[in-house]
Amino acid sequence: MSIRKISGGVCAARGFKAAGVPAKIKYEGRNDVALVVADAPCAAAAVFTTNAVAAAPVLYDRVVVKGGKVQAILANSGCANACTGEAGYKDAELSALATAGELGISPKHVLVASTGVIGRRLPMDRLLAGMKDAAGKLARSEEAGLAAEKAVMTTDTKPKQAAVQTKIGGKTVTVGGMCKGSGMIEPNMATMLGFITTDAAVTPAMLRRALKLAIAVSFNHVVVDGDESTNDSVFLLASGAAGNAVIDKAGADFDAFVEALTAVGVALAKQMAADGEGATKYVEVRVKNAKTQRDADRAARAIAKSPLAKTSWFGKDPNWGRVLAAAGYSGAQVVDRKAEVFYGKAWAYRKGQVADAAQLAKLEKEMQGPELVVTVDLHLGTYESTIFTCDFSLDYVHINADYTT
Amino acid sequence: MSIRKISGGVCAARGFKAAGVPAKIKYEGRNDVALVVADAPCAAAAVFTTNAVAAAPVLYDRVVVKGGKVQAILANSGCANACTGEAGYKDAELSALATAGELGISPKHVLVASTGVIGRRLPMDRLLAGMKDAAGKLARSEEAGLAAEKAVMTTDTKPKQAAVQTKIGGKTVTVGGMCKGSGMIEPNMATMLGFITTDAAVTPAMLRRALKLAIAVSFNHVVVDGDESTNDSVFLLASGAAGNAVIDKAGADFDAFVEALTAVGVALAKQMAADGEGATKYVEVRVKNAKTQRDADRAARAIAKSPLAKTSWFGKDPNWGRVLAAAGYSGAQVVDRKAEVFYGKAWAYRKGQVADAAQLAKLEKEMQGPELVVTVDLHLGTYESTIFTCDFSLDYVHINADYTT
Repeated sequence: MSIRKISGGVCAARGFKAAGVPAKIKYEGRNDVALVVADAPCAAAAVFTTNAVAAAPVLYDRVVVKGGKVQAILANSGCANACTGEAGYKDAELSALATAGELGISPKHVLVASTGVIGRRLPMDRLLAGMKDAAGKLARSEEAGLAAEKAVMTTDTKPKQAAVQTKIGGKTVTVGGMCKGSGMIEPNMATMLGFITTDAAVTPAMLRRALKLAIAVSFNHVVVDGDESTNDSVFLLASGAAGNAVIDKAGADFDAFVEALTAVGVALAKQMAADGEGATKYVEVRVKNAKTQRDADRAARAIAKSPLAKTSWFGKDPNWGRVLAAAGYSGAQVVDRKAEVFYGKAWAYRKGQVADAAQLAKLEKEMQGPELVVTVDLHLGTYESTIFTCDFSLDYVHINADYTT
Repeated sequence: MSIRKISGGVCAARGFKAAGVPAKIKYEGRNDVALVVADAPCAAAAVFTTNAVAAAPVLYDRVVVKGGKVQAILANSGCANACTGEAGYKDAELSALATAGELGISPKHVLVASTGVIGRRLPMDRLLAGMKDAAGKLARSEEAGLAAEKAVMTTDTKPKQAAVQTKIGGKTVTVGGMCKGSGMIEPNMATMLGFITTDAAVTPAMLRRALKLAIAVSFNHVVVDGDESTNDSVFLLASGAAGNAVIDKAGADFDAFVEALTAVGVALAKQMAADGEGATKYVEVRVKNAKTQRDADRAARAIAKSPLAKTSWFGKDPNWGRVLAAAGYSGAQVVDRKAEVFYGKAWAYRKGQVADAAQLAKLEKEMQGPELVVTVDLHLGTYESTIFTCDFSLDYVHINADYTT
């Protein structure tokens, strides 16, 4: 299967329009209401936060998505509509109904998504005015996709989009998406707000299965701070406009689709990690040759979550002891006399041997750049796991001490 | 049972001497080698890190403590003697043997403890010179106890000691201790370096049981950054000098002893949390009325570990949404419409109701001081849990980005 990266986001696949507008939900002069709209009802799948405190839009969407068909998503930043009780649920429902009315589509086919401060009611007048404004600006262009992406950003410093093309049954299929990430990212099932569209023809059941597989190695492998939010959601809409034979079972077509979807998921996941709150460095943690898959995942995740390891990356300090200690308390089998730790291509610790001055100089060089690969080779088996993460900087504390209530 | 707080640390109980001296293990002009020595072999118990990457002194001590008798502990800061392989194990063994020789006691009764940088060999010449120096300065005084405590501190900014007295079978029993904490604190069984002495007469078996009970609600309820170290150890030595009838089974005497031991453990635990790396605020997280004990523990721990909650405490921001969200992803049952969140005595969130401007003013007032109690009332059952923790400040990042390799 050959996958080709292309530019664009939610408008890359045929059959989708988007818009993003400023509606003063929280701040002046920035986009904060987005619409993603399909030409016709699409097969749809979604994965939501496993947090017991789920936001109103998540509670609402869980019901909608069970129907398997979606035509529009209304999203806003600046207000999470979480911990807002019955009234908040009604706000979510009302915004979906109003969107359906404005677009002339079935209210059963509209999802809503919110991100921002917890415990505040949605400013419904401004949200609905923004939705109407966005509906009038819907377009099938890269600019429209980017405007929608900008409207879902919170503390994100960069827009995050990715798109790929592949061939399925002789037809060119496109998968594209956008997401917001930044803080509160420790995906466990779902993670953040993600919107992926495709023109592949896929049944809702196979779409759910594909999304689960792709998320398992992309969004679910991003760690910023270990906090899982109340609003995390990833949506996947398939228009079928590519004209491929409907994917309704496992097989080569399904595998090709999952591969393309995973490529988009991983590209978005890496962008999220690199733009983690206050991040100065994108870090990829790779645990190799673990005894079991669970050991590999646990060790990699523990390293990526360790504040001590993360601050050492920020300080450009090859403190491999913290990395190995995190693997050690993860629950994974670790035998320190067999293990190795690398920063980039340079080893820091090798089966009991510790870096000397010459090796330390190499290590410090590896830590200077904006990207760092930290590898732990456990030499106990054949399993591996990669986590996409970032360092922990002074700015993380600044951002989160000052973010408002 | 009435428990009375008294001053002092490891020398508070009868039968123990201590000393702390500077030996240039890592830095100039500060104590870094300590001895705690009993007049005769004591009943002993210890709890060690569960980290799979355990330091050489931990591996060595596990064997020694199985004998149930200990007379001396040699401790150093500046070098953890972790990930140092066979050679590091021999260093630990040799320092215990040398200490026994210097003190004229059995080498089977000597424990060793190290804290500091991982992956460096102990500077044996300086360590042994320091040990001899300390042996010559052993004294039964508060000053000697404090000198020993200062020698085990790393990034600790304050010495941590606590002592209490109680009556057991008509005799006055004293329990006293010292500890080092600061970073890398997420106790799971053991936590940091803790040294507790008592003049109670207790069998090794009952001492182990008492230590386990006391640690479960004290050291194991401290969270600073969620990292469990390679060296965490808590030692408990009982001289029997109080002259009480030997505690060799469960009953009133055992309960009284556990109560006194727990009081010392909790006092040390709170000091550790308050002096967490970079902490500007001591925070006590209380989860009340959880459905199960496990739910209460999980929710309190998740809140105490959440970087988002911790940075909001640093920023004096009553961001209860992050607190409730952390409870939500902890795995505990949480129903946000039934829950309440308090900062000090002021409520921030009450069963769907959110603080208005007047209430926010009260909340901001509660967050100004050096101590903060964050309470989450789940209203789902009768179980509760308290975690001792601190905020997450800019200085945490400074300290850990700059701490050396």
